[in-house]
Amino acid sequence: MAGNTTDPGRSVVSRVLAILDAFDVEHPRLSLSDIARRAGLSLPTTHRLVGEIAAWRGLERDDDGMYRVGLRLWEVGLLGPLHTRLREVAMPFLQSLYETTRENVHLAVRDGFDALYVEKLSGHRSVPIISRIGGRLPMHATGVGKALLAWSDEDLVDQVLRRPLERPTAYTITGPGRLRQELAATRRAGYAVTREEMTLGSCSVAVPIFGEPSRDGTGEVEAAVGIVVHTANVEPVRHVPPLQLAAEGIAARLAATRDDPCPGFLHDFAPTRRGRLWDPAAQGNGRPT
Amino acid sequence: MAGNTTDPGRSVVSRVLAILDAFDVEHPRLSLSDIARRAGLSLPTTHRLVGEIAAWRGLERDDDGMYRVGLRLWEVGLLGPLHTRLREVAMPFLQSLYETTRENVHLAVRDGFDALYVEKLSGHRSVPIISRIGGRLPMHATGVGKALLAWSDEDLVDQVLRRPLERPTAYTITGPGRLRQELAATRRAGYAVTREEMTLGSCSVAVPIFGEPSRDGTGEVEAAVGIVVHTANVEPVRHVPPLQLAAEGIAARLAATRDDPCPGFLHDFAPTRRGRLWDPAAQGNGRPT
Repeated sequence: MAGNTTDPGRSVVSRVLAILDAFDVEHPRLSLSDIARRAGLSLPTTHRLVGEIAAWRGLERDDDGMYRVGLRLWEVGLLGPLHTRLREVAMPFLQSLYETTRENVHLAVRDGFDALYVEKLSGHRSVPIISRIGGRLPMHATGVGKALLAWSDEDLVDQVLRRPLERPTAYTITGPGRLRQELAATRRAGYAVTREEMTLGSCSVAVPIFGEPSRDGTGEVEAAVGIVVHTANVEPVRHVPPLQLAAEGIAARLAATRDDPCPGFLHDFAPTRRGRLWDPAAQGNGRPT
Repeated sequence: MAGNTTDPGRSVVSRVLAILDAFDVEHPRLSLSDIARRAGLSLPTTHRLVGEIAAWRGLERDDDGMYRVGLRLWEVGLLGPLHTRLREVAMPFLQSLYETTRENVHLAVRDGFDALYVEKLSGHRSVPIISRIGGRLPMHATGVGKALLAWSDEDLVDQVLRRPLERPTAYTITGPGRLRQELAATRRAGYAVTREEMTLGSCSVAVPIFGEPSRDGTGEVEAAVGIVVHTANVEPVRHVPPLQLAAEGIAARLAATRDDPCPGFLHDFAPTRRGRLWDPAAQGNGRPT
């Protein structure tokens, strides 16, 4: 964001990426001058680059002149492995968890020092919470985050504990010693619990999803699956057995489909504008049997 | 894809976008030379541009040297209104539909001549089908597509019927006269039905979601919600009442949150790497009451 609007040394690619960086969940709609300011670019440069991206439909212009992220970026982004592999494999298991609980169900991975939310299922009766797909929350304050952290390398835990830790509620545990105890207790129990540590009124329970074991034993934690319930509910720990079944099922499916970049998909039409039509050879075309 | 690998007239932006275009659901993993060929770029240019995009994490390199769409494109894409508005508003209604049916639930919009799938909920017991989030299917062969088409402008219907129509199964209706009858029957009934027209063994039923009415009456069709069931099940038409309730609920919530670009979200942490920490003022921080 440190923008020198006349920096001639920046590559065009970096300018394009700075324009995409200008958008976030707090700024989903931006004027051209907002984009220029947030990207550190001159207005003429921004105008030209935004025009090219919008022609490709990577950005969309509303009637009032504000820009939003466009359909093509959404389409391309969904080709990444978090969606095509992890989310697709996990979805039926997450759906089963939702069916049995009617509560918020989360699937998250670690990225840097954050829990990054890959899927969130919730219904009318689930307690409202701040997580969102594609959003990040601190690991030490969330159920999925604690599960990810508890089974991470000690080096990473040390790095997390050396940073200033956010304290979203009065119940958030931020003391390094106390957090280390929490993580040890989590490993012993096999699941992570939070009690109003991210949002007042909600508690969570989560378990790790392990990758394939290496020769010397256990696999690395790849993701975590969790449930967030209202504090008034009975102990969230009763959700541990279905969570563990789901985590084991997801891990087994991920291992079984290791070489398939899109295991959830049967086949697909490519975008029509590429001119690719249906391939009848890809599917039986006779009468149903 | 018509690539002149030495075309000096192409802008850098168009080259970057051509690299993103090289990926699709049939090609989620590409080598550097695959990308160069599909984008119509020279290998040195591709190497340089892919390197810059990968440094931003818009692409990711696997251990075997193949590239995939990266985490940042997924994150940015999810800031678009199809996800932040339509999907978020619709989700609790879709989840209720899933709960009552345990079948595939779809949310789709029209884009060009395609039904573009914005959400898909399915469980272990749902019939396997080829739709996927971010994927496209032809309107005339799918339930949500027929619902979108039946309430579209006649001009659009004419354009669709003038094109060669894909015939994924022997039951797909492709004759223009017969399709017009289908669309008229759909409008009269208030819902669309398909019977093995996209995939043998599955049927679907879908209803339109209308935008806010203009002064002279009805709103335009903005999206469609549908259910896909196994052909062996009883008539899918029994799902019409819950579908209509869901469509009305989604339309009402979209209208009520018209000025909110992210109506489903409470608030959020920005990515940690931007250095933005939690704002305690955004949430009550005392003891629960």
